[in-house]
Amino acid sequence: MRAMVVRAPGGLERLERVERPDPGAPGPGEIRVALHASSLNFHDYGVASGRARAEDGRVPMSDGAGVVEAVGTGVTDFRPGDHVVSCFFPDWQDGPPEIDNFSRTPGDGIDGFAQEVAVRPATAFTRAPRGFSHVEAATITTAGLTAWRALVVDGGLKPGDTVLALGTGGVSIFALQLARRMGARVIITSSSDEKLERARALGADEVINYRQEGEWGARARDLTGGRGVDHVVEVGGPGTLAQSIAAVRVGGHISLIGVLTGRAGEVPTAALMARHARLQGLIVGSRRHQQDFVRALDDGALRPVIDRSFPLEDLAEAFRHEESGKHFGKIGVEW
Amino acid sequence: MRAMVVRAPGGLERLERVERPDPGAPGPGEIRVALHASSLNFHDYGVASGRARAEDGRVPMSDGAGVVEAVGTGVTDFRPGDHVVSCFFPDWQDGPPEIDNFSRTPGDGIDGFAQEVAVRPATAFTRAPRGFSHVEAATITTAGLTAWRALVVDGGLKPGDTVLALGTGGVSIFALQLARRMGARVIITSSSDEKLERARALGADEVINYRQEGEWGARARDLTGGRGVDHVVEVGGPGTLAQSIAAVRVGGHISLIGVLTGRAGEVPTAALMARHARLQGLIVGSRRHQQDFVRALDDGALRPVIDRSFPLEDLAEAFRHEESGKHFGKIGVEW
Amino acid sequence: MRAMVVRAPGGLERLERVERPDPGAPGPGEIRVALHASSLNFHDYGVASGRARAEDGRVPMSDGAGVVEAVGTGVTDFRPGDHVVSCFFPDWQDGPPEIDNFSRTPGDGIDGFAQEVAVRPATAFTRAPRGFSHVEAATITTAGLTAWRALVVDGGLKPGDTVLALGTGGVSIFALQLARRMGARVIITSSSDEKLERARALGADEVINYRQEGEWGARARDLTGGRGVDHVVEVGGPGTLAQSIAAVRVGGHISLIGVLTGRAGEVPTAALMARHARLQGLIVGSRRHQQDFVRALDDGALRPVIDRSFPLEDLAEAFRHEESGKHFGKIGVEW
Amino acid sequence: MRAMVVRAPGGLERLERVERPDPGAPGPGEIRVALHASSLNFHDYGVASGRARAEDGRVPMSDGAGVVEAVGTGVTDFRPGDHVVSCFFPDWQDGPPEIDNFSRTPGDGIDGFAQEVAVRPATAFTRAPRGFSHVEAATITTAGLTAWRALVVDGGLKPGDTVLALGTGGVSIFALQLARRMGARVIITSSSDEKLERARALGADEVINYRQEGEWGARARDLTGGRGVDHVVEVGGPGTLAQSIAAVRVGGHISLIGVLTGRAGEVPTAALMARHARLQGLIVGSRRHQQDFVRALDDGALRPVIDRSFPLEDLAEAFRHEESGKHFGKIGVEW
Repeated sequence: MRAMVVRAPGGLERLERVERPDPGAPGPGEIRVALHASSLNFHDYGVASGRARAEDGRVPMSDGAGVVEAVGTGVTDFRPGDHVVSCFFPDWQDGPPEIDNFSRTPGDGIDGFAQEVAVRPATAFTRAPRGFSHVEAATITTAGLTAWRALVVDGGLKPGDTVLALGTGGVSIFALQLARRMGARVIITSSSDEKLERARALGADEVINYRQEGEWGARARDLTGGRGVDHVVEVGGPGTLAQSIAAVRVGGHISLIGVLTGRAGEVPTAALMARHARLQGLIVGSRRHQQDFVRALDDGALRPVIDRSFPLEDLAEAFRHEESGKHFGKIGVEW
Repeated sequence: MRAMVVRAPGGLERLERVERPDPGAPGPGEIRVALHASSLNFHDYGVASGRARAEDGRVPMSDGAGVVEAVGTGVTDFRPGDHVVSCFFPDWQDGPPEIDNFSRTPGDGIDGFAQEVAVRPATAFTRAPRGFSHVEAATITTAGLTAWRALVVDGGLKPGDTVLALGTGGVSIFALQLARRMGARVIITSSSDEKLERARALGADEVINYRQEGEWGARARDLTGGRGVDHVVEVGGPGTLAQSIAAVRVGGHISLIGVLTGRAGEVPTAALMARHARLQGLIVGSRRHQQDFVRALDDGALRPVIDRSFPLEDLAEAFRHEESGKHFGKIGVEW
Repeated sequence: MRAMVVRAPGGLERLERVERPDPGAPGPGEIRVALHASSLNFHDYGVASGRARAEDGRVPMSDGAGVVEAVGTGVTDFRPGDHVVSCFFPDWQDGPPEIDNFSRTPGDGIDGFAQEVAVRPATAFTRAPRGFSHVEAATITTAGLTAWRALVVDGGLKPGDTVLALGTGGVSIFALQLARRMGARVIITSSSDEKLERARALGADEVINYRQEGEWGARARDLTGGRGVDHVVEVGGPGTLAQSIAAVRVGGHISLIGVLTGRAGEVPTAALMARHARLQGLIVGSRRHQQDFVRALDDGALRPVIDRSFPLEDLAEAFRHEESGKHFGKIGVEW
Repeated sequence: MRAMVVRAPGGLERLERVERPDPGAPGPGEIRVALHASSLNFHDYGVASGRARAEDGRVPMSDGAGVVEAVGTGVTDFRPGDHVVSCFFPDWQDGPPEIDNFSRTPGDGIDGFAQEVAVRPATAFTRAPRGFSHVEAATITTAGLTAWRALVVDGGLKPGDTVLALGTGGVSIFALQLARRMGARVIITSSSDEKLERARALGADEVINYRQEGEWGARARDLTGGRGVDHVVEVGGPGTLAQSIAAVRVGGHISLIGVLTGRAGEVPTAALMARHARLQGLIVGSRRHQQDFVRALDDGALRPVIDRSFPLEDLAEAFRHEESGKHFGKIGVEW
């Protein structure tokens, strides 16, 4: 069985194609999945690039989509032939979060899905949205579910709300699409006018080039008639949080998702307090969230934006494309 | 009518006792209240000390308690003789917050209650809890309602939860009492062993001297068997937030209430995110919150802790006592 | 000023066109509104037909839309020329409900909007959705807001949910539109195949003719693959509730809105209990709900379905059209 | 191994003491529990009396408490010697409910705990509250958790709320104690003045003898100054629901728990609607709910009220005591 692995201590040049023994038949409660696609996230980049330490020989990639080949005894959720997609936290089935590490996350603490076949507990997968290609399905494990949880689960998004999405990466573009799907307004930022044009074409109501508009938080607020935005999809972290707080309405909601600008930094806490704003940390979601999200995607009205898709062997190249920051939406891997 | 005022640009030595014209009879929808007590908060200190700018001649003090003397036409909530207590945001009656400034807060944007009589809209007061003295009632406007909102309204506190309260000021002691009243566990911090002893006597389950225990966040977590606390009453702000994040459980709740350590500072956002924690900014609450809180106090089981009470004329001295940090719970003013 | 009134003891033949004195200039906090449209609801029918007792000479109609002509002192929400729409409960501004009667509802306890001009507190209106005609705006006061509250406020509707709407009256068609707008699936019932066709054209995913399908609750459940619907918009009341309970999923939500089939009746409470279902009574909503709903309608993607519109003088005829049950969506009145 | 079983078609006289083979060592993920106590619920009575059909030879009793004797591989939650208590729905671990039948409930669809030893998945138990006797612990599986879910999980009970508890059975007495523990007021009903006296001694604020007070709903409302109660613990069902609706405040919450007066009946739906009240069906709760509840009981401030305890062999006699309706609180079984 073909697989990609990361050799310690990591680095894109240390991604290797290897042959691995076939994992065999599924045991009780397990399914055997023929994998066909994955997609890239910042977290995967951390593992592949060596910034986040992983075991030598780890198979990277949290996102995995494919077809069930066989089911073990006691499995009732799936049948051979079902299209399925992996869960980021295979042990977080339902209810409030209880896990604050990646020791059981595929592609980090355990092997991921950059391989041809995996045998896993059935509870580590959900079915894929109806009509989705494998690479489309793969994008929901991490980026899609993060946007869903931020806006729908935590945010209680409703029509007429305004969402501020930072940048045009995978989570932000999912957030843009979800918000539009639900009748919300979207303001999106980027340093590239071309990307802002593409965001507009996807339905963004307002766009801000943050290179040209240093005080983009105040600008976003102005675009709401001074009321402030209801939700911020905060993928930046400490480097962007002050602007996000400037943008949010009194009583508003900021989903703290990202570490793109660092792991700690200066935050204007008094402003957060005066706004009665909620800064909600989150990392992806539960299997139940994913099941709800899949149901929401079943009608096909929202299709993930795949910037470009690479063959499995070109995984390093895919990450270099991510590194370049030139992508818009998701980068896929297919085989 | 006797009143205390702050002369611009503020300073405790610029608090003056003056005579003011009687405000007369209440107009439609208004009540006339003979005030008898107030209590001190950090916000009042800002105004009195001149750190927060107020108009020359402003009557300070957001908290006010007393007796209704007359009601204007159309007032149905109150009758003469009713004991009442003031609202911090007189225009925020119900629903989510919409105000992010103090332009209509008594003792800041408008005159407060360091005076003998006030005529105000009936909607700027609620009745006082049954059996409370005026100075006890006065403590709920700001400190009491802040603790109520943090734990009950925002936090959904339930028996068996663990609350971490920082320090032994008015809000923290209210939080301690409320948490105990509802069957929750309390961990409290202070730099003074004597204050910690008093907190224990009030029901604190665990105490931490943060002078001796620099890593008090980790210590609080240990005291929950490693699970982390469910709620943090964060009155410190940026200087204490890193420890609070270290203390909170996955999915836990931090009420961001205070600016004692500054208005902005380094926050470990990645840790907040990894814990799926919620940092909820808040300033006091609505009149509806206060009505609910008053109902909760009616049975007399929770009585505010008044460290010491001063005559109205000694307001400056009262603030100096607050400045000293020697108090435990609330400082009152009575006349 | 022209107005329609109901002569005691009511009856469509007792609706009279009268001349009334002009209400004059708005007082403090009031606005003067030139009314141009209303729409019919079951509640209005009760008053007009005399089933619900109203004072002799009462101006009927809870829904009212028009243009602000003048504003009293202290009014900041509106300016002359603004398009506005009335609130069903003018005293319920925000927060949880506190009113269980119609003593202050326009067109019932106080005069309604079947007249040319009204002077009312500014807080008894909200602005109209951008681009709506007056008659479109008028439909949101009662029917529209009821659907909004049922699905969005109480129900927390999200994409992928399934909504069961009973019949094709005003509330149900709004519910259908809202659900579709938010990416939810809709099952709708009617006794008329023609109406079901129209519902399909509006986006209904599944339709049930309840004449042909006596066990329509079980049928709705089947249409969800056996899982049950997430929300029922229960406008029928006791006569339909057993089927609604049969349709709803475990943990699902039934909005109890209607009295079309009576005020009391046999309910299978054990089934409600076994399903862990929530039966939520509601009557319309607060002004805050209406403000949120208006914001949701501003983009123009959802336009109320007006079956037919009558001149003010033909109000009795409009009600007879309602009585006939031939309408689909809302019946309007314009002048 | 000693066990009690119900012989088809049920009936208290068909409860038999039998010898069963020892269940042996726990498999992977299982624990072996030496059971020492159970307690009686209306559901158990249904099975034992034959009103609810069970398989011939079924071991009755949903509640089970005892000591872990051995743990299978992979079990991390428990160690030998731990005191544990069973879960009513062993498959409902967390999140919203998904089960609307008893096919997997111990003592109904599968064997219950009227036996000396059981081997079950570790996830079918939680630890017992600290310091509880086995029979005290056993009472939380069904009655205790039902009260917890009704008031705390679904109701969001807070200090100052008023709870109306119907009767003095197991769920109602738990509700009384929980409400008092959280600073809420309690009104309780009974047909026996003696039981009402006992309820008062446990902290009930107001008592109503419903034999003497036919309109006990209105009476309860009067006892709240006309506002209505915030929560009703509705164990009666259709026969009491009209009074419960008369008692509840606008926007209030009725937990529909019981079938004591039947499985269906006349409900005044228009009154429920006018009150904007919520009728929430529920059956017990999830394992997560039970874990939270256990934590709440750990401080020992609330101890279950055990009316009387019987030896295992006298199970039929215990049920006859339940049948008599003379008990107050819970009836236990111990061995």
